[in-house]
Amino acid sequence: MNNREVIITIHMVSSLDGIIAKRDNNVEWFETPDHYEKGESFSSPEEFSKAVDCYIMGSATYEHALELSKDYGWVYGDTPTFVLTSRNLKQELPSVTFFSGDAKTLIENHLNPAWKNVWMVGGAKLTQTFIDLNLAHEIRLNILPIILGDGLRFFEYVGKEIPLHLKDTKAYQNGMVELCYEIKG
Amino acid sequence: MNNREVIITIHMVSSLDGIIAKRDNNVEWFETPDHYEKGESFSSPEEFSKAVDCYIMGSATYEHALELSKDYGWVYGDTPTFVLTSRNLKQELPSVTFFSGDAKTLIENHLNPAWKNVWMVGGAKLTQTFIDLNLAHEIRLNILPIILGDGLRFFEYVGKEIPLHLKDTKAYQNGMVELCYEIKG
Repeated sequence: MNNREVIITIHMVSSLDGIIAKRDNNVEWFETPDHYEKGESFSSPEEFSKAVDCYIMGSATYEHALELSKDYGWVYGDTPTFVLTSRNLKQELPSVTFFSGDAKTLIENHLNPAWKNVWMVGGAKLTQTFIDLNLAHEIRLNILPIILGDGLRFFEYVGKEIPLHLKDTKAYQNGMVELCYEIKG
Repeated sequence: MNNREVIITIHMVSSLDGIIAKRDNNVEWFETPDHYEKGESFSSPEEFSKAVDCYIMGSATYEHALELSKDYGWVYGDTPTFVLTSRNLKQELPSVTFFSGDAKTLIENHLNPAWKNVWMVGGAKLTQTFIDLNLAHEIRLNILPIILGDGLRFFEYVGKEIPLHLKDTKAYQNGMVELCYEIKG
């Protein structure tokens, strides 16, 4: 990549059984009723995203987030957001840019050189692309205290072995555990 | 269950993508080359299992462990171990008992009332049975810092939602993260 200082992180929230979306797209499971005494207090999604300079997502994830924004607000705030899509989607938010090329071209030629902290936030298909093409440096997985039992998997089929380095782990009061890994090799 | 004081724990070691066994059964990935500065030192499997009064496993897991014992020793030590199987397996270890009934009968009628801490250690099929029949109280998942990409999943298809309570989490120097959950409801 041109800009070696950028860190591209695949970020995902999953259940313990590795599911990132229910078949009906219901997201009530994000609001866990759990309480973990020893956990850190969980900052709001807005607080959480302050460290992120730019988001990348697939069009299904975008449309889902847009749908959710009617009830919960747009979770990515004013942070520049690239949506990878070849479809003609309607511009609804000033922070969103639609990009019809591939992920590698986007990263190499269109990311602002000042951006250091880029998060790819879904979905499963784009995760697969990022892993296949070695586009990501980190994986940050937040595991919620639930087994969903059915739905879309974070890792449906990776098909190759990838060694990781555990960089950090945190547990939150809502029972969520965050695992942060560097992708090696 | 008769004995309400017993805690039955499903214990599994998986990759980040939720795989518990490679297709070729190779277990070299258990020996992670990772180093996590902030992690606790990892006690040996023998040390680890001192807290366990009894193991339960399926016959495939048993045969796999027996195969591995040629190189690494029998990892479950002298701890009483029940193997659920309808097959006529050869008795090779004094600590192992073959049981041809179902898991529920084993737990209700054959566990020593003095045993408080029973671990079900695999495989995927027996995990499914324990979850389907609500036989387990806890899940303890140890995630190693690797994506395996292919193999047998811990949670292949649970098919129902199960709320969990995060009881504890620990990170080890070898990059392994342990998640311990109470199964609710």
